[in-house]
Amino acid sequence: MVNPKLPVIWYGGDYYPEQWDEETFERDIRMFKEAGINVVTLGVFSWSLIQPDENTYDFSFFEKVMDRLYKEGIYVCLATPTSAPPHWMTQKYPEILLTDVNGVKREKGGRQNFCPNSEKYRYFARNIAEKLAEHFKDHPALVLWHVNNEYLNYCYCDICRGKFQNWLKEKYGTLDELNRRWNTRFWSQTFTAWEEIPVPTTRSVLFWRKDRYQSVLPELYLDYRRFMTQSMLECFLEEYRAIKKHTPDIPVTTNLIAATFKEWNYFEWANHMDVAAWDNYPGYKEDFSVISLRHSLIRGLKEGKPFVLMEQSPSQACWRWYNPQKRPGEMRLWSYHALAHGAETLMFFQLRQSKGGVEKFHGAVITHVDSPNTRVFQEVKRVGEEIKSLSDILDTRVVSQTALLFDWESWWAMEDTLTPNIDFKYLNEAEKYFKALVKTGLGVDVVGKDQNFEGYRIIVAPALYMVDEELARKLKDYVSNGGILILTTMSGIVDEDDQVVLGGYPGYLRDLMGGYVEEIDALPPEEKNEILMFGKRYECSLVFDYIKTTTAEVLGRFGRDYYMNEPAVLRNRYGGGWVYYVGSSASFDLVWDLVKFIEREHNLRAEITPPDGVEVIKKVKGEKTFYFLFNHSHEPQIVDLPEGTFRDLIKGNLYEKKARLQPLDVLILLKE
Amino acid sequence: MVNPKLPVIWYGGDYYPEQWDEETFERDIRMFKEAGINVVTLGVFSWSLIQPDENTYDFSFFEKVMDRLYKEGIYVCLATPTSAPPHWMTQKYPEILLTDVNGVKREKGGRQNFCPNSEKYRYFARNIAEKLAEHFKDHPALVLWHVNNEYLNYCYCDICRGKFQNWLKEKYGTLDELNRRWNTRFWSQTFTAWEEIPVPTTRSVLFWRKDRYQSVLPELYLDYRRFMTQSMLECFLEEYRAIKKHTPDIPVTTNLIAATFKEWNYFEWANHMDVAAWDNYPGYKEDFSVISLRHSLIRGLKEGKPFVLMEQSPSQACWRWYNPQKRPGEMRLWSYHALAHGAETLMFFQLRQSKGGVEKFHGAVITHVDSPNTRVFQEVKRVGEEIKSLSDILDTRVVSQTALLFDWESWWAMEDTLTPNIDFKYLNEAEKYFKALVKTGLGVDVVGKDQNFEGYRIIVAPALYMVDEELARKLKDYVSNGGILILTTMSGIVDEDDQVVLGGYPGYLRDLMGGYVEEIDALPPEEKNEILMFGKRYECSLVFDYIKTTTAEVLGRFGRDYYMNEPAVLRNRYGGGWVYYVGSSASFDLVWDLVKFIEREHNLRAEITPPDGVEVIKKVKGEKTFYFLFNHSHEPQIVDLPEGTFRDLIKGNLYEKKARLQPLDVLILLKE
Amino acid sequence: MVNPKLPVIWYGGDYYPEQWDEETFERDIRMFKEAGINVVTLGVFSWSLIQPDENTYDFSFFEKVMDRLYKEGIYVCLATPTSAPPHWMTQKYPEILLTDVNGVKREKGGRQNFCPNSEKYRYFARNIAEKLAEHFKDHPALVLWHVNNEYLNYCYCDICRGKFQNWLKEKYGTLDELNRRWNTRFWSQTFTAWEEIPVPTTRSVLFWRKDRYQSVLPELYLDYRRFMTQSMLECFLEEYRAIKKHTPDIPVTTNLIAATFKEWNYFEWANHMDVAAWDNYPGYKEDFSVISLRHSLIRGLKEGKPFVLMEQSPSQACWRWYNPQKRPGEMRLWSYHALAHGAETLMFFQLRQSKGGVEKFHGAVITHVDSPNTRVFQEVKRVGEEIKSLSDILDTRVVSQTALLFDWESWWAMEDTLTPNIDFKYLNEAEKYFKALVKTGLGVDVVGKDQNFEGYRIIVAPALYMVDEELARKLKDYVSNGGILILTTMSGIVDEDDQVVLGGYPGYLRDLMGGYVEEIDALPPEEKNEILMFGKRYECSLVFDYIKTTTAEVLGRFGRDYYMNEPAVLRNRYGGGWVYYVGSSASFDLVWDLVKFIEREHNLRAEITPPDGVEVIKKVKGEKTFYFLFNHSHEPQIVDLPEGTFRDLIKGNLYEKKARLQPLDVLILLKE
Repeated sequence: MVNPKLPVIWYGGDYYPEQWDEETFERDIRMFKEAGINVVTLGVFSWSLIQPDENTYDFSFFEKVMDRLYKEGIYVCLATPTSAPPHWMTQKYPEILLTDVNGVKREKGGRQNFCPNSEKYRYFARNIAEKLAEHFKDHPALVLWHVNNEYLNYCYCDICRGKFQNWLKEKYGTLDELNRRWNTRFWSQTFTAWEEIPVPTTRSVLFWRKDRYQSVLPELYLDYRRFMTQSMLECFLEEYRAIKKHTPDIPVTTNLIAATFKEWNYFEWANHMDVAAWDNYPGYKEDFSVISLRHSLIRGLKEGKPFVLMEQSPSQACWRWYNPQKRPGEMRLWSYHALAHGAETLMFFQLRQSKGGVEKFHGAVITHVDSPNTRVFQEVKRVGEEIKSLSDILDTRVVSQTALLFDWESWWAMEDTLTPNIDFKYLNEAEKYFKALVKTGLGVDVVGKDQNFEGYRIIVAPALYMVDEELARKLKDYVSNGGILILTTMSGIVDEDDQVVLGGYPGYLRDLMGGYVEEIDALPPEEKNEILMFGKRYECSLVFDYIKTTTAEVLGRFGRDYYMNEPAVLRNRYGGGWVYYVGSSASFDLVWDLVKFIEREHNLRAEITPPDGVEVIKKVKGEKTFYFLFNHSHEPQIVDLPEGTFRDLIKGNLYEKKARLQPLDVLILLKE
Repeated sequence: MVNPKLPVIWYGGDYYPEQWDEETFERDIRMFKEAGINVVTLGVFSWSLIQPDENTYDFSFFEKVMDRLYKEGIYVCLATPTSAPPHWMTQKYPEILLTDVNGVKREKGGRQNFCPNSEKYRYFARNIAEKLAEHFKDHPALVLWHVNNEYLNYCYCDICRGKFQNWLKEKYGTLDELNRRWNTRFWSQTFTAWEEIPVPTTRSVLFWRKDRYQSVLPELYLDYRRFMTQSMLECFLEEYRAIKKHTPDIPVTTNLIAATFKEWNYFEWANHMDVAAWDNYPGYKEDFSVISLRHSLIRGLKEGKPFVLMEQSPSQACWRWYNPQKRPGEMRLWSYHALAHGAETLMFFQLRQSKGGVEKFHGAVITHVDSPNTRVFQEVKRVGEEIKSLSDILDTRVVSQTALLFDWESWWAMEDTLTPNIDFKYLNEAEKYFKALVKTGLGVDVVGKDQNFEGYRIIVAPALYMVDEELARKLKDYVSNGGILILTTMSGIVDEDDQVVLGGYPGYLRDLMGGYVEEIDALPPEEKNEILMFGKRYECSLVFDYIKTTTAEVLGRFGRDYYMNEPAVLRNRYGGGWVYYVGSSASFDLVWDLVKFIEREHNLRAEITPPDGVEVIKKVKGEKTFYFLFNHSHEPQIVDLPEGTFRDLIKGNLYEKKARLQPLDVLILLKE
Repeated sequence: MVNPKLPVIWYGGDYYPEQWDEETFERDIRMFKEAGINVVTLGVFSWSLIQPDENTYDFSFFEKVMDRLYKEGIYVCLATPTSAPPHWMTQKYPEILLTDVNGVKREKGGRQNFCPNSEKYRYFARNIAEKLAEHFKDHPALVLWHVNNEYLNYCYCDICRGKFQNWLKEKYGTLDELNRRWNTRFWSQTFTAWEEIPVPTTRSVLFWRKDRYQSVLPELYLDYRRFMTQSMLECFLEEYRAIKKHTPDIPVTTNLIAATFKEWNYFEWANHMDVAAWDNYPGYKEDFSVISLRHSLIRGLKEGKPFVLMEQSPSQACWRWYNPQKRPGEMRLWSYHALAHGAETLMFFQLRQSKGGVEKFHGAVITHVDSPNTRVFQEVKRVGEEIKSLSDILDTRVVSQTALLFDWESWWAMEDTLTPNIDFKYLNEAEKYFKALVKTGLGVDVVGKDQNFEGYRIIVAPALYMVDEELARKLKDYVSNGGILILTTMSGIVDEDDQVVLGGYPGYLRDLMGGYVEEIDALPPEEKNEILMFGKRYECSLVFDYIKTTTAEVLGRFGRDYYMNEPAVLRNRYGGGWVYYVGSSASFDLVWDLVKFIEREHNLRAEITPPDGVEVIKKVKGEKTFYFLFNHSHEPQIVDLPEGTFRDLIKGNLYEKKARLQPLDVLILLKE
């Protein structure tokens, strides 16, 4: 439960009464109540309103708003406004403004346009957070703190450069140690003074390549990513601590942007957030499993604890090139989908559509039509009504037999430098294997390398590029104790310093693999190969391991080219468990057949096996088991149920043996 | 008539004798006369020649040239050289140089590389214009002033910033008013001092998105466009006034680049030009109606008055990736096409092809072969001969039953910010509807929102995104009085401050539409829908209005998706007139069938109905009516004529009932 | 022979013992010997190691390494480290760092990041070269000096600007002369002080267009390319002279990047190199003739003398998007291919794969597996064994009946400005005609315009855009004396000042052509035309000459468009020889049929006519003639041999009449 003060599913979203007159505000309140809204987020982007100059604070506007809302039974998630510093501030203290990856200092305007290492910015951010907390600490409507908004950008200014040099000094102690671990004798990059170390802009060691920046000094860039993650996290923590002084019992969070967001290692962030929170904007026709991966990642950040869905659009976005409306029923489906995956709030961006500015076409509960008689409002209202009776699902926990090992450092290290194939990407591989696990119905969690592996029957670790000895040991323990591990090509290649582990890939994981990769061939994406396995031919592409086996058994072999008939897919017995290895970027078909094979071989069994297009999520609370069934497809679906009689918590219908799901419909089944 | 001093069709073009020796000049004169050339443009880009340093002026070269030309019966369009400031000037006064959209100050070189707000630039420009005027004011060859050349660029320097802040102060009076009308509470963009307001560079509020810059502060960007239009126009006016002091009776103009040129609102410019002028460079295989739109726009700038065609290539351009030659006959066809649409001059860029510099491959009347025995020269000569006897068409006026309402502010406001679909573009829609009107043969003008709507049977106003109350009233008056108005999706959305008019789109036009748009769906361009109308299925794409009707009748309905069978095309009776509304980006087929439907329903009739590929332009002078018939196709065409006998002014043939047009041929028919 | 001290084929490559510990070094030596390696390149990128600060030099590391290698019979190619200045240097003297084409000063990091005109850089480079030479001058292992590494970048800083202005003063004497020859009256670009002249950045006269930078002042840009070529060459020469003082008898070279590399006019460089050297990285599935062109160009730089292959990958690169392994046999094939074309060394980048840095995935003889038991190592070893007995081919010379005239200045001048078709590219045309000549088996050299044309039966000069009177005279002499010259469209257009030669293209070559081009049509690449010739239809595209013949005979005519039936391909008798002219970008089929036609007509005969996919290179030494036969295809091939019995030097087999080549195999046939 996010905050026991409000022990229901939270329903609401971002609201900007400061953009509207009082009459509109009153009309909005009536519509909020009609829609079942019980929590409103206030104050995001309000900095110039509440601190109109350096020495003036004025919380009267929001105080009045909060009083009025509370009177109507509506609670408040209060945001600090630090995502967009006011113009007076950046005018007086231009050091606050961001310097971009080209080394160009930005001018004022927009949001997320600040340097995370600017002491001036940190002072003002900490200060306004504290003033807010001090002022509103006793307000009865306050149920959650929302720090900043979608932390976004790395900065590359001189302040960052100085702090980065200090950070490196702290980490490496001596330049000799840094030079050794960064392998700077390559290309004569030896540093002889800390002051010489640049930040990785396109003026120094960064260059644009196809679809991203890469570095000619990848060890430096990797450390810069670690440093930036910590720098920005420190901004959050400055506010966090200032707030906690005054409201130790109100949870504090920040809405993380796009769960699988490369810039920030969210595992580091989550340790410091009272509750995880994120903003969910599914892409058009995106496979549902990708959305599931994002939810599962956010859930995994805090090892399964409920999280806050801080933003979703009730209808359409505006910042994509093409912004489709959510089709009728989609918002409802995805709302329950979030709840199933661990969310205990359904918050919209936004409650009322703005009439000016860059996001005026972003969807809202109350649209430009300014009326409850819209399709969008009516769908919001329907969900609002339904969830009123679903508080029983609060504090349930997802139970999964499998997990994806997700690792930002592998993502960074692999994609930030020249590899055999630039199109072999971390996220693609993660999503592909995750999707197969979702289809099994066994349930999938996402775990970080510092988290607990125990209890999972299968762990997939696609493209686990960076593996140090400790992680290797942990994986060996997992397998030794009976676990099943799926590894792939491009794994175990470097250690924590981004240095190749010699002796053949995957380095410290060779024993687990039961062989080694002698070389990695790479071809343009249109040049496929195939893998012969289980009597079938599967497509594979991009990278192709040239493998020597030691203890492993060969499951699949390449179908063409100079490694025709050489091993492509392996199985290796290790201790009490098994390791599977896929030596190419395999088609989903292969991954899916392999996962089904593993299920059969190792006698894994889902309680409910979802047909295509259907997702099953199992949750428990105490003795109770809930099955969330989603029909993500546009056709009706029949699902086979386990023994017993189940009641759907939403509509109250009883089911036995089979459940029929309408297109885009959901059932929450509780055993009678 | 551009200047009664030379009451014939002007024939000539840009000429740079300063790049050649005297012998070549004399050879050129002989060829000019052979080709029928009677006007030569001199002095474009001559600044370093006529003002070799800050205090020296030397007009002797051009004086000699003009004397010599005049002696041969050739008149002169004299240009001010201010398009390319000399290097001595930008070396000494670097403030003159442009700062680009990235906030980067340019170095010297090239043309249109000056800041329109630099007082230094304005001083030098005004001064050289005045010196020129003073010197040549009594020269008998002088018939037209040509200020600058193809004004092109916005500047983003600190001078512009300061003047922009002043301009805003002038416009809004107080920051409170600016903040209110710019809706700056969105994203905390409130300005607390005029000095804080940035210019919209990519360092501040501008960002690149797919194919253009857009702004996170669209209200600011819109005002910057207005400010820049006025800034550059002021540059023109500085020169204009300086010239007029000395030659009040010689018309002054500037050659506008590419009629539908987004940067400048030419309606504002035209008010200050004695005669409109532009440069016509049709694209390869471009539909002829697009060229017609551009001519009609230029004609419309001064409400139908004759204009100057200042540049066209006799053959090929050089600044495109691929520069096809005009096919034999095309130059002749497009020359008459310009005359029909209102031009009274046919000027080429250029008379002699340069042998160095970046444009050495740009076509010319006298090519690198340096001989009259070229295909190009012979075609120029033929046209020169033909037009000698066509002075009768001078001072004719186009007569049109229909008009396109063209609006730069809608273009800007809609494309400069995030909308549901980035591919829905102003110009595409304008060209599509214009094309249909051209095909009817009813004749089409282009009108601005401040111009007279009366007298047109149909006005189309595609994507009229910005509609304030005044424009709405004007359109209502037009329809009330019996006019037919065609509106489309993405109209009436914002007011003059770029703020959404609440209550459902198209805002103040809802009554005219007879309904409102509740939401706009958007899909990638490859995902089509269809509209069922007139018993047929038409393709539509990009944006899809979800419509609620009030008084309107439904003509067409969507064929798929969640708005299947919902209204897509409407007709609404309003006062004495009718409004048609198309709620999607419709295929040309739909637009064409709709326009034909309207013709039939409202009993509109073209005097000559052009077959496919043929264009008819009706012009009048006093009692005389001229029909210009163009066969833009590569096949012969038969055109049905009205009652009577017609004579073709070019070849003298007589026609009755039918006229046969050879491929790429033209007839100018005058009733006997 | 590169250096008579080591009169065998050199086999080895770049090696970086400074990145490894001693134990690894010893292991490497054992593997080097197993692989037959006899030369190792040391010291590339060692600057911070051997000069750790401004006043300290320490050569002990490399001295020890060289002693150890020499003891094992391995010689050393010693590199100066000047490709990557150390950080202490750029920190103290930031003027050394490059300024890029956008006028942006770079920060430190990476390689080739220095200004060639910085006196500071030149001082340090000259100094370290001299110190190295002084220290190692008597080392018995030393056989070759390797200056810098892959000179790469133009600089655009203020130092360069000042030197460029001086260089222009030197060249033109007066500004009047410069203005005249640059045609600066175009667009008023007249310079009135040397200080006004900019360097061509994107802030001044350069702009990005489709796939490259072009200039609005092409004459300036052309001179900048000439100036930069000389500036960077001067860097090389500073080191060259410093080294020669101490080791006058050791050859000095630098490894030129990518033979057909646009930035540097290598003909100018070669005059100053003791031996030509380059790095060969064939593209994936690149036609073999393109690799042959590059080798032949390098060979031609010094008119046929043997050259150094300084780098090739034993397996894969890493800096491409997709980095395929060389297929089994390819490295061997391409090694012999280099030897046949004139190389006398086979050097790999690199001997041991690095474990950190941006190129850690670049292939190496000793891979990350760190073992001789890899496919790659075994292939290297096989070639090492084979070449031991092939010293007989040292000092052989290629004998060719035909040549390609290759001209950097035409390449620059044509592509750096606006032409009729941006897709008509110099290199494409050169490669197409070169390929046809390769296929004949007549042998092809590459010659520069200052080199000897005599002795060739055919010279092809595709897109010879820049032709001054001297070159025209030289070509006329060649043809007059019986030579056959193949010319194409876009030739002879400008003189050495980039000014068009009037009177019709190809300017001074009109007599040779026997006609002139009146105009050049240009179409987008997808719009083809065809040429009717030899009773067949051939595709052509991009540019289409509108030709008037004088003395020429018409071989082919266009098949479509307004120049249907107009001349497209000509033959002209000129003195004792013949000129062929192709007036479009013809398909390879046309070029190939034309070349075969010329062979027949003029009774040219290859001693061995290669079937498709096979290449024949004839070499001689004294009385001996060697035929190198390459099967570049993946099928076996049969080659008809001349009279006599031949022995294959590699395997010792005897051949008569026919030789069968396995896929990717090679024979070196010497007549018994």
